[in-house]
Amino acid sequence: MNPDFSLITYLNERKALVDRALDDYLPGDKNEPPVIFQAVRYSLLAGGKRIRPILCLAAAEAIGGDAEAAMPAACALEMIHTYSLIHDDLPAMDNDDYRRGRPTLHKVFGEDIAILAGDALLTEAFHLLADRKRMPGIPTDRLLDVAREIAEAAGYRGMVGGQVQDIRAEGEKVGLETLYAIHRRKTGALLRVSLRAGAILAGAGDEALADLSDYGGKIGLAFQIADDILNVEGDPALLGKGTGSDAARGKITFPALLGIEASRARAEELVTEAVSSLAPFDDGAAPLRAIARYILERRS
Amino acid sequence: MNPDFSLITYLNERKALVDRALDDYLPGDKNEPPVIFQAVRYSLLAGGKRIRPILCLAAAEAIGGDAEAAMPAACALEMIHTYSLIHDDLPAMDNDDYRRGRPTLHKVFGEDIAILAGDALLTEAFHLLADRKRMPGIPTDRLLDVAREIAEAAGYRGMVGGQVQDIRAEGEKVGLETLYAIHRRKTGALLRVSLRAGAILAGAGDEALADLSDYGGKIGLAFQIADDILNVEGDPALLGKGTGSDAARGKITFPALLGIEASRARAEELVTEAVSSLAPFDDGAAPLRAIARYILERRS
Repeated sequence: MNPDFSLITYLNERKALVDRALDDYLPGDKNEPPVIFQAVRYSLLAGGKRIRPILCLAAAEAIGGDAEAAMPAACALEMIHTYSLIHDDLPAMDNDDYRRGRPTLHKVFGEDIAILAGDALLTEAFHLLADRKRMPGIPTDRLLDVAREIAEAAGYRGMVGGQVQDIRAEGEKVGLETLYAIHRRKTGALLRVSLRAGAILAGAGDEALADLSDYGGKIGLAFQIADDILNVEGDPALLGKGTGSDAARGKITFPALLGIEASRARAEELVTEAVSSLAPFDDGAAPLRAIARYILERRS
Repeated sequence: MNPDFSLITYLNERKALVDRALDDYLPGDKNEPPVIFQAVRYSLLAGGKRIRPILCLAAAEAIGGDAEAAMPAACALEMIHTYSLIHDDLPAMDNDDYRRGRPTLHKVFGEDIAILAGDALLTEAFHLLADRKRMPGIPTDRLLDVAREIAEAAGYRGMVGGQVQDIRAEGEKVGLETLYAIHRRKTGALLRVSLRAGAILAGAGDEALADLSDYGGKIGLAFQIADDILNVEGDPALLGKGTGSDAARGKITFPALLGIEASRARAEELVTEAVSSLAPFDDGAAPLRAIARYILERRS
């Protein structure tokens, strides 16, 4: 690995590129009703870590492709992630008042606008994915395959299905296998498809695609376990939201089932396995290797 | 026009084809969490008129294409329409208890599941639109263009934007121009793109596409005016929902602004103009001509 590679610099640079692209993709037509744009911008430009778009760009790079060419897909993934947060925060769902250190969208704009802003972001994601003029060098078959895979990962086979399972499991006695199954869909599917999307757009072969999917599945679970641990012992000031909320809500988490130490050990194991999946790749996969290790170190 | 053409027979046959296709497209994987499938089926298979899919198929036919080849896009349009009804019915939006003669989805499954079922249907629509294996004979450029246009019509530039404008206009003093603008987006954009989608998939040239768009815009408005009139003087038993709800809610409608008679006259004018847009087409457009006229006669 290149000894000069700094993950923090890399993440900051990529985040800045993604933030600028998201800003560019958001509508500027002055005839549109301003409130929906304000709402969409409030949530989308609230300063997330942009982990899904960064994984998408990094996967394209690992294949030897041009990361920037995958930017529309990368931004579509962030829009889908943001819409899911908006809807999850609603009173009928998790009823959260704060997100990323600011009042949640429905607290500021009302529930009706929050529902519609989520709908708008989800729809706009597919608008971007289908916009072949924005990705002129990429064969249209690949664009369709990426849109289809992202829809599969975001819908009832993936994220939405996992969210339903999670809601129905609250307050129930749930075993470890069910918890894995919930997270593979609720958070894992979108993280995994972020890698697949970047790789498909860059023209990955079947083996490289399988390796990156494997990496994505593993870091998806590791990420969720790390999140659960942060909810127990993280710093609310760094997280931008309260801790202990999972336990208060009777939510099933990895620390609740395994204890903190075993959860941490499982996350470490998953990260090691994820890095092993990248063995066939050259230095182009250095960011992906570093991101996997970073999951265990992050504080927010 | 073929004197033997019966619109009622045509609509019933097409509705049956669409219903069967929707049933086929819905997931059958027994490992999925059943509640989300039950919810999606409850709303999607509740027996709507399937006007958007029928327009999509009829537009493909008017171009001389194979109507059945456009079936996935036709069903995607119905999924988007159904998701919009589910979200519109929510307590935070219109707070409706009945839809198509049955309790609304959130009354049966809860608000959280209703939000997620809407999200799932919207996502699944794009899954269908991006599934090139389901539309094997159609160039992938066309598939992408249709997905992009539908996203544009359904999102903040179209349906969602119109819904936001409509919510913000409730209880406000609104003029006729604003009312037209709201409906062009809230209901008109999706009806119009239903025609464009079928036409693009069938390989329409620019002129034919413009004529069908024009037709779609006109019948979209006529349809909305007819809907407003039905809400004033329709038969609740036929409609499957109460009447007078618009007035009770202080909703701006065409009858409220123009009176019933002038509203009816405007709808008739729009239908005449819509039929004129189809002048260049041969008998393949007979169903579209008949559908336009039917808008003025429908009772539910």
